[in-house]
Amino acid sequence: MLDKMLNDYQIILASQSPRRREIFDMLGLRYEIQSSDIAEPVNGEDHGLQAMRNAKNKAESVFAKSDGHSVIVSADTIVVLESRILGKPESVEQAHSYLAALSANTHTVVSGICVMSGKGQRCGYEKTEVSFAPLTDDEIRDYIRTNEPMDKAGAYGIQGFGSQFIARVEGCYFNVMGFPIRRFYEIARDMISKGML
Amino acid sequence: MLDKMLNDYQIILASQSPRRREIFDMLGLRYEIQSSDIAEPVNGEDHGLQAMRNAKNKAESVFAKSDGHSVIVSADTIVVLESRILGKPESVEQAHSYLAALSANTHTVVSGICVMSGKGQRCGYEKTEVSFAPLTDDEIRDYIRTNEPMDKAGAYGIQGFGSQFIARVEGCYFNVMGFPIRRFYEIARDMISKGML
Repeated sequence: MLDKMLNDYQIILASQSPRRREIFDMLGLRYEIQSSDIAEPVNGEDHGLQAMRNAKNKAESVFAKSDGHSVIVSADTIVVLESRILGKPESVEQAHSYLAALSANTHTVVSGICVMSGKGQRCGYEKTEVSFAPLTDDEIRDYIRTNEPMDKAGAYGIQGFGSQFIARVEGCYFNVMGFPIRRFYEIARDMISKGML
Repeated sequence: MLDKMLNDYQIILASQSPRRREIFDMLGLRYEIQSSDIAEPVNGEDHGLQAMRNAKNKAESVFAKSDGHSVIVSADTIVVLESRILGKPESVEQAHSYLAALSANTHTVVSGICVMSGKGQRCGYEKTEVSFAPLTDDEIRDYIRTNEPMDKAGAYGIQGFGSQFIARVEGCYFNVMGFPIRRFYEIARDMISKGML
C-alpha cells in the first residue's frame, strides 16, 4: 500500500492539478505541493516519451529547489486525437471544436510520471484509450456552459459532468484523471527495494 | 446533460450505496434516497439479465410505495470471476480469499439499471472487464486492514485504496463504481423523447 510505503518520506507533489491532489488524498498520502515553472514543450517525438520527459523536467526543477531529502512526484498528461495534441482550450470556440472532434471517436490519454529523490529517479508513462459517445451541438454547448472543459486538456474532465459522454475506457482509468496510480505504485515499490528512496 | 434533462422531475434513487450517491452528486442531480428491501436473488441465469432483473425489482418495490409522480432510478452490481459471483465478504478470511482469486486475473463487473415512472420503465445492463495486478499476501492483509473491502461486492473498491491494485479497465469505469452513467444517460434521453418521463 502506498501510504505504508511512503509515509516515512517527505513527499512533494510537483503539480497544481486539483485532480492529482484528489488522487493523493484518496491514497492517504501526506504531501506538500510545489509547482514547477517548466513549460511543457510540444514536439514531434513519441507522445509517451514526451509526457515522460515533461514529467522528468518538472521533477528536476522542483528537486533543484528542495532540501534534497524530499521525494518529488510529478506527472504530465497529454490528450492525443489522431496524432494531434489537444491542449487546454484557449476559447469557447476551441473547446467546441475539440469536443466535436472527440465525439463518436476514440482518443488516447498519455500520462508521464517521474519519481525523484537524492538517490535517483525513475520515470514511466501510461496510455489509455477513451471512447466518446456521439455528441450533438446542443450537448457540447451545454457542457461548455458548465465551465468544466475550459481548464482541461482535451476540453473535458472524465470525472464530473464529462462522465456522461464517456462510452468506454481501455487501460488505467486514473491515468485519464492525470495520474497513473498503478504505475506510480510499481515505480515507488521498485525504488524502495533498490534503496533509491 | 442529465441535470438539464432531469431536474424538473422528482427523482428517487433506490439505493443506499454511497458510491451511487457520489455519482448522482457529481452529475448535479437533485434526488431523494429510498432503499428497497428487495433481496438480491442469485441464480443460474445470465449475469447481465440477473443484475437487470434485480434492478427492476428494486425500482418496482420503491415505485409501489411512492406517490406515482416520481422517477425511480435503481441499480444492482454483481462481481463475477470465472462465472462465480463474489458478493460482499462475510469475514476477513473470505475477503482474503476473494482478493487472492482476483490477483493477477481479469474479472467482470455487471451493473443492471432500471428507470421507472408512472408512464413506463426501461432497464439495461453494462459489463466492464477489470484486471488486477498481482497481489502478495502482505498487500492483501494491509488492504483488508483499511476495512475498505468489507462492505463491497468482490471485496474491493476501485475508487479508494483499491485503485492501486487495478492494472486495467475495459468498458464503462463508472459501472465498476456501481452505476453505468452513460447507459443511464441513454435510457433517460430515450424515455424523455418517448414521453415516458
